[in-house]
Amino acid sequence: MARFRLDLEYCGTRYSGWQVQKNARTVQGELNQAIAKASGRRDLATYGSGRTDAGVHALQQVAHLDLETRSPPEPLRLAINDALPHDIHVLDVLKVTRQFHARHSATERSYLYQISRRRSAFAKPYVWWVKDSLDAERMRAAALRFEGLRDFRSFMQADEEAGSTRVKLARVELAEAGDLILLRVLGSHFLWRMVRRMVGVLVEVGRGALEPEDVARFLAVASSVPAAHTAPPSGLFLERVLYAGELLDRPLVPVVGVTSSRRTPARRS
Amino acid sequence: MARFRLDLEYCGTRYSGWQVQKNARTVQGELNQAIAKASGRRDLATYGSGRTDAGVHALQQVAHLDLETRSPPEPLRLAINDALPHDIHVLDVLKVTRQFHARHSATERSYLYQISRRRSAFAKPYVWWVKDSLDAERMRAAALRFEGLRDFRSFMQADEEAGSTRVKLARVELAEAGDLILLRVLGSHFLWRMVRRMVGVLVEVGRGALEPEDVARFLAVASSVPAAHTAPPSGLFLERVLYAGELLDRPLVPVVGVTSSRRTPARRS
Repeated sequence: MARFRLDLEYCGTRYSGWQVQKNARTVQGELNQAIAKASGRRDLATYGSGRTDAGVHALQQVAHLDLETRSPPEPLRLAINDALPHDIHVLDVLKVTRQFHARHSATERSYLYQISRRRSAFAKPYVWWVKDSLDAERMRAAALRFEGLRDFRSFMQADEEAGSTRVKLARVELAEAGDLILLRVLGSHFLWRMVRRMVGVLVEVGRGALEPEDVARFLAVASSVPAAHTAPPSGLFLERVLYAGELLDRPLVPVVGVTSSRRTPARRS
Repeated sequence: MARFRLDLEYCGTRYSGWQVQKNARTVQGELNQAIAKASGRRDLATYGSGRTDAGVHALQQVAHLDLETRSPPEPLRLAINDALPHDIHVLDVLKVTRQFHARHSATERSYLYQISRRRSAFAKPYVWWVKDSLDAERMRAAALRFEGLRDFRSFMQADEEAGSTRVKLARVELAEAGDLILLRVLGSHFLWRMVRRMVGVLVEVGRGALEPEDVARFLAVASSVPAAHTAPPSGLFLERVLYAGELLDRPLVPVVGVTSSRRTPARRS
């Protein structure tokens, strides 16, 4: 019996999230089936680094499993990919020690959110298209309030698994790239729907409906306002899961881009 | 009654091509409905620069129509976009003279095709993923045989509308961009399925199953070989429709890109 670490990317549009469910198509469910087909083993269990919700994408999700197989990692990876649907892709398979646990060994996670200020025929599954004019500078000022160790109880969906509502965000970045506004957050763990509610509040700040100071207020005193502004899952990517000693070294750039054939400056719509 | 020129982009995945059809969802059908809704006129007819097949995308398709409306172009454009599904987007609306005809006034068209040498969870709708190793240099040598005035009868699907099978391709370009191989062809007109059969033959050359010289042979003598290698529609984009005096000045770069969070060099699969 050997332990394997799997790194995978997926487009979440067609799936009811990561976690295996009865009567719903999930990424983990598809992965388990593909591994069973590739390995001939039926009694397998995969463990993910964490869940992603329906419609949320991943550039790097990490899972591990114990498998009785004589296959080296690379042929195993190719066989799993052959059995997977086109929107789930195993990037890497590594043999690891029994000490490795996809969830418990992870030290940090980063999420990326793409907001688009322009309608496009191609971007919809990967962005939140916001029609109203957004002030990115106001959004950045508000975003920085999230940095550090904060109480995110106003930004979470109740979850029986949740422990403390205090989360330390080591880094919060906001960048503009053409018509896109990108938000990236790096933290040790995240509460359910937390990033989508942070984004929802930031967009309200960008629109002028909330003030950057409101973020500080929601962090200080429990509020139901963030829940009313949960951003859609389409713009959200689990970007990276970090293990001991790894650094988040990817620049903050769009992950899905469609360049137009037009030379004229893009107009809002 | 004023004539309007509409420039639009669309993701063809969900549509049975451009041209309006009974009992099938097409891009033109959706466009007609959206214009009817935006203008309140029901008796309208749009004319496209040409057809695209089911699953084929457009970065710029051009259509015209005559419309009884007092609306200036920009509010009309926004109203049409509001009535369109998310994967069809009107980029521009212009008032033009009655001399303008989307099809007859067009002088050249360019098509772009994306071949991917790497499996990815995000690219499938916009590329043809070819698993076998491809020799891009052989493909480029073969592609150049298509340039100039040639007889493309071996590369066309029979079409009752077709006139001459001789087509002048002003430019044929092949470029590599990471794991992608891009082909761009610029010509005065194109025959049905012509680009997809050119790409299919080039991939066979890249695989080593055909020789660059076979392209010259198919252009000289009628052959059914290209029809057997029609490339899938997913990789094909109507890139640009050119009118008097316009230049194709967009660099040959990928139109839909998904950058990975991984720093490790991309591996094939």
